[in-house]
Amino acid sequence: MKYTALIMAGGKGERFWPKSRKNMPKQFLSLTNDGRTMIQLTVERIKDLVSFEDIYISTNKDYKKLVMEQLPQIPEENILCEPVGRNTAPCIGLGAVHISNKYDDAIMIVLPSDHLITYNAMFINTLKDAIDVASEDGALLTIGIMPDYPETGYGYIKFQPEKVNKRAFAVEKFVEKPDREKAREYLDSEQYLWNSGMFIWKISSILNNFKKHLPNMYNGLMNIKDSLGCENEDFVLEKEFRNFESESIDYGILEKAENIYVVSGTFGWDDVGSWLAVERINSPNEFGNVIKGNIITVDTKSSIIQGTDKLIAAVGLRDLIVVDTDDAILICAKDSAGDIKKVLENLKICNRNEYI
Amino acid sequence: MKYTALIMAGGKGERFWPKSRKNMPKQFLSLTNDGRTMIQLTVERIKDLVSFEDIYISTNKDYKKLVMEQLPQIPEENILCEPVGRNTAPCIGLGAVHISNKYDDAIMIVLPSDHLITYNAMFINTLKDAIDVASEDGALLTIGIMPDYPETGYGYIKFQPEKVNKRAFAVEKFVEKPDREKAREYLDSEQYLWNSGMFIWKISSILNNFKKHLPNMYNGLMNIKDSLGCENEDFVLEKEFRNFESESIDYGILEKAENIYVVSGTFGWDDVGSWLAVERINSPNEFGNVIKGNIITVDTKSSIIQGTDKLIAAVGLRDLIVVDTDDAILICAKDSAGDIKKVLENLKICNRNEYI
Repeated sequence: MKYTALIMAGGKGERFWPKSRKNMPKQFLSLTNDGRTMIQLTVERIKDLVSFEDIYISTNKDYKKLVMEQLPQIPEENILCEPVGRNTAPCIGLGAVHISNKYDDAIMIVLPSDHLITYNAMFINTLKDAIDVASEDGALLTIGIMPDYPETGYGYIKFQPEKVNKRAFAVEKFVEKPDREKAREYLDSEQYLWNSGMFIWKISSILNNFKKHLPNMYNGLMNIKDSLGCENEDFVLEKEFRNFESESIDYGILEKAENIYVVSGTFGWDDVGSWLAVERINSPNEFGNVIKGNIITVDTKSSIIQGTDKLIAAVGLRDLIVVDTDDAILICAKDSAGDIKKVLENLKICNRNEYI
Repeated sequence: MKYTALIMAGGKGERFWPKSRKNMPKQFLSLTNDGRTMIQLTVERIKDLVSFEDIYISTNKDYKKLVMEQLPQIPEENILCEPVGRNTAPCIGLGAVHISNKYDDAIMIVLPSDHLITYNAMFINTLKDAIDVASEDGALLTIGIMPDYPETGYGYIKFQPEKVNKRAFAVEKFVEKPDREKAREYLDSEQYLWNSGMFIWKISSILNNFKKHLPNMYNGLMNIKDSLGCENEDFVLEKEFRNFESESIDYGILEKAENIYVVSGTFGWDDVGSWLAVERINSPNEFGNVIKGNIITVDTKSSIIQGTDKLIAAVGLRDLIVVDTDDAILICAKDSAGDIKKVLENLKICNRNEYI
């Protein structure tokens, strides 16, 4: 059976401001020393498993040009533009419809475009294990990440250690982002994994689940499928998408479906959720600083400083994030990284769209 | 008797980097919301007491153009360029020589070009009191600032409360920058004033003291005087200046001379010694921030942020100095303001002269 992939690249990711902007979200940025952007790394990572003509990118029309520039090897017809963002269920449904129009059935690997993975070979092995189970009729596979600390920013997957299907465990339930105490319990229990947002299933399996759990959406998706290649394709897509409820695949299907399995992975995964991740994904220097650009530090420790050609002199700093771009500088205490969105709110209120 | 003034503007002031540069030292910067530069404010302050043609500016040839641009009302022949920096004694001697070439005798007011004064009327009154005493033969007047806290960065003047000449007290001694404990003692004793580096005397009084305490320098100065207006003027100036020992007026003359008096002033004086002064000389906002430029703050307190048109977003900051210029940004903990010079040392070592 063919292996296909849907890479989800419609996110706006405000947490990397001022580097990320409305017209340049995180997935199109390079945040490692590698030089390649996150979406380029995502494609690179699976290219031995899935051929370019079977890799689909779901995004929106604002980012289509960026996708084509950064991924010239992906056929233009594989770039799926959602007319409007309706969360992951319609996004994945649209991908499944396009793939089902091409192949009778196929393995579909769903991947976020803005996560980082350190150990690609281990990641591919994990995917292969998942594909093995997903090849069974009706099985829906998720990738769970072995947690190493009680993170409160991720959703968790509780698995049933006794119910094993090859290398996959049956999923007991999905749980929302926990508080500190709960996260600690989850970690100690050794029965919870981080929900990576990566899924593997057959097209037939996921479409059957759409039919069962989201029947209205399924009908809309089938209308879209029928219109593919027809004159009214864009019109139908627009009409159906606007009618879809905003729904995540987790809540809309996975939490209700049977035969959900999780394969646990340990391949150096990071969702790169904020500037703080830069410290995890790059090696800090002897002073604990992660520095890129034209920078002089004096007695500066545990700081992230990302600049351009412009000289940045950092004197006596601790635990600070400094990001300089051509038109804006962010200076932010690490503890306050969550407040970067307030800068964006302020800019929106003041209608200073050039900075958003 | 004519009132004349010498404004000393040869300083390089590295402590306001990156705004101050080798070719743009502090005295030529505007550090208040007023918009005028420090040297412009200095001239403005005394213009009712001393006419422009009697105001002399001592500087060096690198800054002559800046002086002429910023002070077009000062005659070019009053801009005295020291061939080489030899501290304040030769600088003041050169001014005295020029004035003595113009007037038989005159009152000479010596002022730094890079201090700020809030209450000009009170300052002028203090100067008038000093001039009154300085009109007596041989009297050398200094202006002492009533200290309001145990500053360790200034020199102090000890006065003798019982020895009063009009509104001036006899100076007992000059003392170097004290440590914290000594500074506290000085403050508590109520017999010490901050040495402001402002002096008032008759030309005849100061030249007599040069003759007595710095006879070699006096001879050199007389050679310079004799050459004024002659073909060899520049040659003699260069030759004599290079031969001068580097000597401060405080150490070279004031600490040895008799008839030294101090008039105490309370006119909102600030030597603007570092970026920290910006907070004293401007009114912090309700969060304790002093902000200038295109700036958004979120949960930021007690910080100094000076920018340009470029957006600066400050998030969760405390006690930080941020200064953005066209080619360099300084981000410095207030406690580490003294380490800004290390940035300059680093730049010098790396021969990155464009930033110095």
